[in-house]
Amino acid sequence: MNIVIDAMGGDFAPELIVQGALEAAPLVPGTLILVGDTKRIEPYLGGSVPPNVHLHHASETIGMDEKPLEAIRKKKDASLVVGANLVKAGQGDALVSAGNTGAATACCVLTWRQAPGIHRPAIASVLPNKHGDFLLLDAGASPDVDPEHLVEFAQMGRSYAKTVMGRSQPKVSLLNIGEEEGKGNAFAKQAYKLLTKYEWFAGNIEGKEMYARPTDVVVCDAFVGNIVLKTSEGIAELIVDMIRSEVPTNALAKLAFLPLKKVMGPLRKKMDYAEIGGSPLLGLNGVCIICHGRSNAKAIRNAILQATKAVDNRLIETIREDVCGEAGRT
Amino acid sequence: MNIVIDAMGGDFAPELIVQGALEAAPLVPGTLILVGDTKRIEPYLGGSVPPNVHLHHASETIGMDEKPLEAIRKKKDASLVVGANLVKAGQGDALVSAGNTGAATACCVLTWRQAPGIHRPAIASVLPNKHGDFLLLDAGASPDVDPEHLVEFAQMGRSYAKTVMGRSQPKVSLLNIGEEEGKGNAFAKQAYKLLTKYEWFAGNIEGKEMYARPTDVVVCDAFVGNIVLKTSEGIAELIVDMIRSEVPTNALAKLAFLPLKKVMGPLRKKMDYAEIGGSPLLGLNGVCIICHGRSNAKAIRNAILQATKAVDNRLIETIREDVCGEAGRT
Repeated sequence: MNIVIDAMGGDFAPELIVQGALEAAPLVPGTLILVGDTKRIEPYLGGSVPPNVHLHHASETIGMDEKPLEAIRKKKDASLVVGANLVKAGQGDALVSAGNTGAATACCVLTWRQAPGIHRPAIASVLPNKHGDFLLLDAGASPDVDPEHLVEFAQMGRSYAKTVMGRSQPKVSLLNIGEEEGKGNAFAKQAYKLLTKYEWFAGNIEGKEMYARPTDVVVCDAFVGNIVLKTSEGIAELIVDMIRSEVPTNALAKLAFLPLKKVMGPLRKKMDYAEIGGSPLLGLNGVCIICHGRSNAKAIRNAILQATKAVDNRLIETIREDVCGEAGRT
Repeated sequence: MNIVIDAMGGDFAPELIVQGALEAAPLVPGTLILVGDTKRIEPYLGGSVPPNVHLHHASETIGMDEKPLEAIRKKKDASLVVGANLVKAGQGDALVSAGNTGAATACCVLTWRQAPGIHRPAIASVLPNKHGDFLLLDAGASPDVDPEHLVEFAQMGRSYAKTVMGRSQPKVSLLNIGEEEGKGNAFAKQAYKLLTKYEWFAGNIEGKEMYARPTDVVVCDAFVGNIVLKTSEGIAELIVDMIRSEVPTNALAKLAFLPLKKVMGPLRKKMDYAEIGGSPLLGLNGVCIICHGRSNAKAIRNAILQATKAVDNRLIETIREDVCGEAGRT
């Protein structure tokens, strides 16, 4: 198995991307291919490079603020573009990138194309809740969709929950502004009607409940999904900030607050996206894990493990079976 | 000034509603009219009723789970319906209700009608951020709107920020999934285009930034707004829950965690919607403050003070001037 890593994507690339790959190398059975400017990557490789870490040169880099389509078209030798092409050519089984999310999405769509039966790709995010975690999608790939596309998101989300998150009979809920049937805007009402044909559909779920109830998969359009993600991040940071502001700066007075560290440690761990790795881009003929732009080495290491698991457990094939099998049923 | 209070609406009605009114009575210049089943209200009034607290009998109550339109049509003598009619008849200047939000919205729309120039009402929520607070609307009144309606929300939000929140030149941001122009779904792009004509428009804001940056007013449709509200509540509860679960239950071991209380106190206060009161329903020919169903006495007291401020500072007239003045300009 070969995992292709966009070594130049992300706020701390290539340093922390390379570091994450080096940390993952002893943990994976296959090869890691770092794609990027070899001159800029090499200084971070250290003395003894693990035998399963390879370099693949690419002369260009797509910046975090570049316009996705324009950048992909112009920079044919960008690390991201070269990486996606390696997967397309069969030289890689999955791509990991912490670069420009829009560019990564567009590049994989254009290079790999949608899987059979899928009309819109979706980015799925693993979020924490009281009972462990759940998958929210679409978190940002397809902002303008029809209610029909939410059925595809549900099917792909189930495939991911089964193959990578270890859920055996994942249930899917529709993110809505009320629990009962008939709630929501016209879009949500129509999506409900379409989803209700499936036995795995668990009905509507509210933004508050998804953090409190056991849930496997929650579907929504990318606009709502991205707002949920950013809002959650914002509130969590606000709270941590407020807690911190109450702790005295005086060293002696601070002592009394030491037990707070015990409390904040596990909290931070649960809230830390680096623990999970990245967000899978689902619905294409290839596995792509998109990482946060601010990813550290741990996030990259975990994203590589996530990609390995997705390939190992046949994520792409499972999506194909789940979507086509069910499409055939109706 | 007469503030009308739906004494039967809310999970803890009439007890905590009456208690909240009694707490507010000495603080307001006008009269408080408690509308509801007098037999059920009287036991909570205690020995000496303040002279400015009056009772107005209404024999019926709309339940929290009843279908709004159906309930309003059938229960002509419901506390909510009677209260809205008192305001319409000029016997009251504002209505406060912690009952069924959908019913309160529908009842006020049908009884008072939209203000001139306003096509959709909006519920505005005051949310905390690092710099104090900001107003988010629509938080739940009108789930299906056109981008044009967001301009009305922006104008009404400014009027509320000026009259009740004390902001002199409030800026309005559009909730979106990216900062730059051209980001978002088709709806957001069109709303941006319409808002950009106004000097008070501050551009797009992301879900994370609105909790971090100084902001006055943030507009979005009710579906997104309600999801933001519930998501924020959910994450905040998850975090508080996780912190609590780390504190030992053993009394002696607990001692070391006492300073945590010092930290959690101000945090809880900032996150507590009862501190603010309720959410104004904007865009109608009347002032309505909608409270959380689980409102306690403090929330009701603060909602009454909020309503008093809105009447005192001419919220309705300001909305009329702001909307018509600006409509005349284009």
